[in-house]
Amino acid sequence: MIAVIGLGLLGGSLLRTAAGAGAKARGWDLDAATRADAREAGLDVAETVGEAVAGADLVVLAVPLRAMSATARTVAPLLGPDAVVTDVGSVKGPVRAAMVEAGITRFVGAHPMAGTEESGFAASRANLLPGARWAVTVDAATDVAAFTAVLELVCGALGGEVSVLTDGDHDAAVALVSHVPHVLATQLLSLVTRSGVRDVALGLAAGSFRDGTRVGLTDPRKTEAMVTANATAVAPVLRDVAEDLESLASALEAAAAGQDVDVAAFFDEPAPVRALRGEPTTSDTVATRLTSREDLRSLAVAGAEGAVVVSVGDGVVQVRGASVL
Amino acid sequence: MIAVIGLGLLGGSLLRTAAGAGAKARGWDLDAATRADAREAGLDVAETVGEAVAGADLVVLAVPLRAMSATARTVAPLLGPDAVVTDVGSVKGPVRAAMVEAGITRFVGAHPMAGTEESGFAASRANLLPGARWAVTVDAATDVAAFTAVLELVCGALGGEVSVLTDGDHDAAVALVSHVPHVLATQLLSLVTRSGVRDVALGLAAGSFRDGTRVGLTDPRKTEAMVTANATAVAPVLRDVAEDLESLASALEAAAAGQDVDVAAFFDEPAPVRALRGEPTTSDTVATRLTSREDLRSLAVAGAEGAVVVSVGDGVVQVRGASVL
Repeated sequence: MIAVIGLGLLGGSLLRTAAGAGAKARGWDLDAATRADAREAGLDVAETVGEAVAGADLVVLAVPLRAMSATARTVAPLLGPDAVVTDVGSVKGPVRAAMVEAGITRFVGAHPMAGTEESGFAASRANLLPGARWAVTVDAATDVAAFTAVLELVCGALGGEVSVLTDGDHDAAVALVSHVPHVLATQLLSLVTRSGVRDVALGLAAGSFRDGTRVGLTDPRKTEAMVTANATAVAPVLRDVAEDLESLASALEAAAAGQDVDVAAFFDEPAPVRALRGEPTTSDTVATRLTSREDLRSLAVAGAEGAVVVSVGDGVVQVRGASVL
Repeated sequence: MIAVIGLGLLGGSLLRTAAGAGAKARGWDLDAATRADAREAGLDVAETVGEAVAGADLVVLAVPLRAMSATARTVAPLLGPDAVVTDVGSVKGPVRAAMVEAGITRFVGAHPMAGTEESGFAASRANLLPGARWAVTVDAATDVAAFTAVLELVCGALGGEVSVLTDGDHDAAVALVSHVPHVLATQLLSLVTRSGVRDVALGLAAGSFRDGTRVGLTDPRKTEAMVTANATAVAPVLRDVAEDLESLASALEAAAAGQDVDVAAFFDEPAPVRALRGEPTTSDTVATRLTSREDLRSLAVAGAEGAVVVSVGDGVVQVRGASVL
């Protein structure tokens, strides 16, 4: 039995998909109206969190990041001895810390790369998660059976693919590809907002501004919560950006003054990533049997280099793009 | 007769559209193969720049920014006494300076918001410019007849709409909505390029990264040229961004350390621009007769507040969204 705690966009979608795939899955939400909506959608919904968690092999905490610690403390005493806990939060280090604090040891972190602009059960749907890339995070203490249970749910009933990562690699990566882009989109909007030529700027805005600001238009509280939760990974990157932009500003000013300075280097630095576009990606997979924590460590090393778990069965994972396994 | 000097993406498209609309228009390009291609496309192409400019009422310099000064010096002695010169460059202050230096006084700056990712005559097409927003820039010395001639071309044969602006307002606005977005897109790509988790970051990248980096994938030399040409407007904005991001980094670190700091303000600053989305825009226009330089100054004041010239005829412009005329 899978218990899904929190039936918003991700929790609701997860419960719909798992139930649709024939998994025994039960949900619960703090909000009575949400529970009623979920029942009306034909889902198995418990009336109390204790009833939801009772007898569950796998408990998915799909609550907002700010509610994670309190939910973990509520759930911890209700868990069976072998129950595995996972989550769907967008940062992984702070979530693991909350689990440790609550005394939950059989924890495996998870984060689906799906859905950020909508929220709530009304936005949930059975086709949100199938095909999604997930990050599943491990540390030196992660239990192999607990890890396998989470992988079976994600690659099985939920139809996902998995990058196995350490919390640190995950949080560093999402800072770069999600949190800092959200900050810079907000910054671009602020520059125009405070400008004396705001209206003409908006009138002249073309594709580069629309693309660069799109995620800056979403709910600022949600963006703030996401960025703040990953502060330790985001802050040093923002300082790097500030330093780079100061250097570029100096180079541009020197160039405008007729000095012979290197402005090109700034624009050439992404050449290796530009060159990756359109490169064929392998579809070959290698099979790895999961028997020890050392196997999880190897998976996380491969994950950091881009390897992806595409399926799991009988304790064997199939890994695509794994040059180091 | 209109002469188009330079038959790349913008010059080629401009000549195709003007000729298609029945205007007497002739082109020239420094490159013999481009001249041959343009002739093959059925366009009137001169063999020399002198032949192209001879007898022209309006000369459009559609050459790259780096070639603008040299082209202006070449063209200046070939111009008839009443010939008007305009351009299509993406910065306006430096182009006007080049014209002054070359002794061209009947100059009106112009910049169509169209096309940045393709280049060359092969990419030019008759439907690129119709419907485009243009900036047309004026200063205290701009001649009313010269200004009207450019407006008649842009709003007439080329089917465009015009924001009338000072060079300074134009260059400040495009720094905000084009040049700085290009810099930040490049920066986001560089952060991933230099990261130890590059491959997993690219694997986890979703919409916010794809949108935020799209224009960073285009030709870095073109982006560099555009940003460098507008260095005096771009550099101070980059310093503002650096300062804001340093402040946010400090606030995030303080919040992570449990201090009570205001992180929200950063994310709330764009509220006024977010609120503008979906607001109805007026379609009412007011008519203004252009008789003196003071009328051009008024148009540029209205332009800075978002007013747009939608048509011109018999010395009268129709202006949409002009609260200050």
